[in-house]
Amino acid sequence: MTSSEAYNLRDFVFEKILNEDPLLHTVTLLGTQKINGSENVPAIIRIEKTALPVFTDGFVERSELIESTDIYTWLFGWLPKSDDNPDVKINVICPATETHIRKYSAQKFHIVRETPALYERIVKPYIDAFPASRTQWVEDIIAGRSEASKVLFRSPPDTSNGFLILPDMKWDLVTVNSLYLVAISLTSEVRSLRDLTSGHVPMLKSIKGEAERIAGAKWGLKATELRLFVHYQPSYYHFHVHIVNSNYTGLQGMSTGQAHMLDDLISLLELDGALLQKMTLAYALGENHALCTPMLEAQITL
Amino acid sequence: MTSSEAYNLRDFVFEKILNEDPLLHTVTLLGTQKINGSENVPAIIRIEKTALPVFTDGFVERSELIESTDIYTWLFGWLPKSDDNPDVKINVICPATETHIRKYSAQKFHIVRETPALYERIVKPYIDAFPASRTQWVEDIIAGRSEASKVLFRSPPDTSNGFLILPDMKWDLVTVNSLYLVAISLTSEVRSLRDLTSGHVPMLKSIKGEAERIAGAKWGLKATELRLFVHYQPSYYHFHVHIVNSNYTGLQGMSTGQAHMLDDLISLLELDGALLQKMTLAYALGENHALCTPMLEAQITL
Repeated sequence: MTSSEAYNLRDFVFEKILNEDPLLHTVTLLGTQKINGSENVPAIIRIEKTALPVFTDGFVERSELIESTDIYTWLFGWLPKSDDNPDVKINVICPATETHIRKYSAQKFHIVRETPALYERIVKPYIDAFPASRTQWVEDIIAGRSEASKVLFRSPPDTSNGFLILPDMKWDLVTVNSLYLVAISLTSEVRSLRDLTSGHVPMLKSIKGEAERIAGAKWGLKATELRLFVHYQPSYYHFHVHIVNSNYTGLQGMSTGQAHMLDDLISLLELDGALLQKMTLAYALGENHALCTPMLEAQITL
Repeated sequence: MTSSEAYNLRDFVFEKILNEDPLLHTVTLLGTQKINGSENVPAIIRIEKTALPVFTDGFVERSELIESTDIYTWLFGWLPKSDDNPDVKINVICPATETHIRKYSAQKFHIVRETPALYERIVKPYIDAFPASRTQWVEDIIAGRSEASKVLFRSPPDTSNGFLILPDMKWDLVTVNSLYLVAISLTSEVRSLRDLTSGHVPMLKSIKGEAERIAGAKWGLKATELRLFVHYQPSYYHFHVHIVNSNYTGLQGMSTGQAHMLDDLISLLELDGALLQKMTLAYALGENHALCTPMLEAQITL
């Protein structure tokens, strides 16, 4: 589809709802679409309500009382119809592949418990099996072959336990309230928090220190305005730390069972340097995650 | 205001925005309002976009291309105007007190580190100072004076480390996807997870076991479909565990830095029964929390 052809929503033949979220006011639909007079091809449409327009006197054209009790009142409202104020934003993917459909489908989450024995039997072989090409993009950043101009901090090359800090690709680089940086260790030895021992405490503390320094110098944030956390399971097995404005709430990747406060990890490692190898870790896995089925089966014998 | 008087939004005089959330499509306004010919009184208006209507052929009346590249297309859409399809839902609180205004105002969050020494110096005295009346409602549930018919499980009275399980007041008792139960210990000895030792592991394990049994028997959920977590800081200092459907994501109280997986706590206590007294705990405090100022001041000397 080229930009000159306006997508015609009327040609979309609805098949089923892939996902909906009343809180976020979104719905994702699967259907088919004729393009360029061709056969019908799969299409995904994600619809979300637009943000509220700026409040003015004529903001609500008409309102209707739902209920009123004591000091509380609920109403429905209708906004003035206007070309400048669309009701929804629509994202279309067409033709959509199986991968797109899976990505946009609602996923069921399961909480599993990973004992040290299950780590050795299921998770470690899974991590070992990843081809190096899967984290080539990380190596490219570390080697300075990509995103070099974005790097905010880089340890001197001879530093043991070195790391670099750069903006996360999820961040728009502008909105301080949703500041999102990532610290990536220079060596690929630490693949996840399971590999962390007391020997890594200096690295973890210095990630914290540099993150605080950068966020303060560049965006005026105090140390207490940053939330630093580590994912387990992470999305890639090269140790990294998420650095987020502490006011940026509602991030799904910030949930207990996946996110671990860096400060808590430092404290645990200082109390017992081998704790993260001995601990049983509980976390959520989506059904599309490759570890989900083997881990669910292993739960039965726990 | 009585239900017979329809609230007239046109009488609202806008003063300032208390809060806005583009993700949730909400905005909260403070202003003043004349009621019954009286003086202007403070009024809070919270406006949220309504859920999307059910998708049909005529769902979008008109669309306008924003951008198109490869298989991706973005459009704006306008919905047909209809009495059955309001654009926004409006909640009004009038007259609003200072407390209402504070509750609806955006709150800044800070991440603080609570060492064992800071617990002794700041947090423990804060907890000790609470009058018993603040958790009278918990005592009433435990004594069977309130919500008795809602209790799903109760330990026999002579059980040491006993507890009960009942639906959380946030749950609608119907939507299994947002299932929310709470387990409350029968004794008031354990005030927060800081008081947990290896001696409490049997209680924690039996809370987990009963929660899984109830959620399975009553709502057909598997053990892996439940996320059990403990808050620190909690909203009341009588030990309790949150039991939530693992697919219920996006809950603010589920964030790392406040929520701790019950399974992780059990594992830590089994490895070292005094770990939760020795650990430094990092967590988020809203500026309205009574501990925020003293804890922020104490961070400087850490």
